[in-house]
Amino acid sequence: MNTELSQVQLRELLDAARNIQPWMTRIRHRLHQVPEPAFREFETVGFVAAELTELDAALVRRVGDTGIVAELDSRLPGPVVALRADMDALAVEEKTGAAYASRHPGWAHSCGHDGHMACLLGACRVLREIGLPAGKVRLLFQPAEEQGNGAKLMIEQGALEPLPAAIFSLHGWPGLDVGTIASRGGTVMAASDVWAVRLVGRGGHGARPQEANSPILGLPGLIEALADMTGDELVVSPCVVEAGQAPNVIPDAAVVRGTMRTLSPEGRTRALEEMARVVARACGPLGLTHQITLDQHTPPVANDAALHERLVGTARGMGLDFALLSGPSMGSEDFGFYLEKCPGVMFRLGVGKTCPSLHNSAFDFCDEALPAGAAMLAAMALEALRSS
Amino acid sequence: MNTELSQVQLRELLDAARNIQPWMTRIRHRLHQVPEPAFREFETVGFVAAELTELDAALVRRVGDTGIVAELDSRLPGPVVALRADMDALAVEEKTGAAYASRHPGWAHSCGHDGHMACLLGACRVLREIGLPAGKVRLLFQPAEEQGNGAKLMIEQGALEPLPAAIFSLHGWPGLDVGTIASRGGTVMAASDVWAVRLVGRGGHGARPQEANSPILGLPGLIEALADMTGDELVVSPCVVEAGQAPNVIPDAAVVRGTMRTLSPEGRTRALEEMARVVARACGPLGLTHQITLDQHTPPVANDAALHERLVGTARGMGLDFALLSGPSMGSEDFGFYLEKCPGVMFRLGVGKTCPSLHNSAFDFCDEALPAGAAMLAAMALEALRSS
Repeated sequence: MNTELSQVQLRELLDAARNIQPWMTRIRHRLHQVPEPAFREFETVGFVAAELTELDAALVRRVGDTGIVAELDSRLPGPVVALRADMDALAVEEKTGAAYASRHPGWAHSCGHDGHMACLLGACRVLREIGLPAGKVRLLFQPAEEQGNGAKLMIEQGALEPLPAAIFSLHGWPGLDVGTIASRGGTVMAASDVWAVRLVGRGGHGARPQEANSPILGLPGLIEALADMTGDELVVSPCVVEAGQAPNVIPDAAVVRGTMRTLSPEGRTRALEEMARVVARACGPLGLTHQITLDQHTPPVANDAALHERLVGTARGMGLDFALLSGPSMGSEDFGFYLEKCPGVMFRLGVGKTCPSLHNSAFDFCDEALPAGAAMLAAMALEALRSS
Repeated sequence: MNTELSQVQLRELLDAARNIQPWMTRIRHRLHQVPEPAFREFETVGFVAAELTELDAALVRRVGDTGIVAELDSRLPGPVVALRADMDALAVEEKTGAAYASRHPGWAHSCGHDGHMACLLGACRVLREIGLPAGKVRLLFQPAEEQGNGAKLMIEQGALEPLPAAIFSLHGWPGLDVGTIASRGGTVMAASDVWAVRLVGRGGHGARPQEANSPILGLPGLIEALADMTGDELVVSPCVVEAGQAPNVIPDAAVVRGTMRTLSPEGRTRALEEMARVVARACGPLGLTHQITLDQHTPPVANDAALHERLVGTARGMGLDFALLSGPSMGSEDFGFYLEKCPGVMFRLGVGKTCPSLHNSAFDFCDEALPAGAAMLAAMALEALRSS
């Protein structure tokens, strides 16, 4: 087994996490009630900061209005290992029926970030009880994972300074049995870009279309050409179409926006070149001009191969089920920004085979999964401290 | 000549209108400065009402907040003849450079309703000077021609009670020499409907289009099928497309809205049946459901044949150029609502060959056209009173 901790130590660690399941559950329910938008996680981070202080974790940095970096310090020389949780919620009207459901109308923790935070606080408590062999464990509570690339802001404002030896994060995952760990080496989630194609023609009166060159008539070819780009390792998904305001005025311009998912920088470059070609081919013959803009680039989440091997051994050593992912998800996660800077692993934590899907208004993180999540984060941190 | 007034009388009438051109010009410039949105023509109607009072026209009815009906009364038995002007302006940033340009940012009289009102007040003054042979001339200043079918509200609130023997209105028209009158018997402007087609599929995450049934992928076939309906006597013009909000979320629904122009009730019925067919054909194979809704129906402007013949004679008798229109415009005008109730004519008044087009931010009504407009309205009213 390629782990630093013995099977006995790993099981003790899981037991320690199981002992604090009621405490983690209370934390999660408390956070679940106050879901907040990206970069406005005020109540959330206030609660998290108070818990960290209780756990003797030092608050070493604030990032923006709501991001925090805390550290558990062994006061012995050694490396830094980082663990990360995200804090923002979704603009979803919660329909879980839970007693601890959202008190913020129109907002819900439908992506389970409440569970991620509870797991990370649990890992912190377990690590504090067990003690660190050397170095420091840095705890990153980041804003704005869903929108806004909060990870990028964290890094820009020093969350990876000095650079950790490794970084780990988890994501609750429906469709996996509770407590099952799943991952793979290499790319586990896609790179994401928001693209927009703006067509410009010549507007006019709706009653005299022959006098205009309507950009709306360019939409059919454009939408089909873009959607047809989707293939095995590429998704181009038109999600927004906007043209015109008055029903009797042909507008000058039309815009299609959407997401593009790629699995490597090379794949992304090829896809952008292809997009430029198909858009030009769709618009040129109609005499429409076009402009392609890109926004909100998120890199792929590329797991370190060796650390992933250790993750497999750690999960199995703990007695948890491990599922090797056959390929990457085309979903994206801004954890990829951290992995551009230092090696690490993002793994999935099963929250139940029949759990509603992520972002669904009925989704609720499974409390029984909290111990496995907390124990895995703590174990990966300890092993990275020992091996560095 | 099929007119009631002699050529001498008609020329005297035009002379009377020419004498008050400076007064009409001041009125138009004053109104031009205060363009107001549909149903909010407060300053406009306040000014018009004050002028009507000066002219001894009795205010007999208010319609909504801003419509007014006034009457010149001969105090002799006889019919009622109605003359109508519209008062609303457009959401246009004026670029005429005129000294009397709009003082209301973002609003302008780019459809020339300031000129229509000045002509109608001019007709009122000429008729007062000449005197009515019998009956009454009813003056309709209506709100909301551009949007909202103000004519419909006028009728609902009694503007045609008791029913006039005839009704007349004019529209300033670029591309015609100043003071030229143009019209035709029968349909002169199209019927208009605002239609909306809503496609409903199954939304989902932008990264996993294979799990959704995107209504956006139904837009190409839908837009092409709708636009292809346009033919000689039918315009179907998609002007608004709305789908989705977030660039990574495939929406459940997409909407295309636009205008339909038809030339007769039968043509309209056929077009609506055809629309239902082509929409079903475009959406069915994709498993998308659809819903077609109609709104803001405006009937065609159908000129009375005999009154139109009299209009031709009147214009020529006055010494004005007359241009017979070869066919209807696909534009629409809510004057058609009045013509559903009583016979009448809408005619075009030339405002200059090189005048910028209607609704263009550089359009400005031509003051030199005011006398011809006022005289024609007054003459048509007098002749209708005499002949009834």
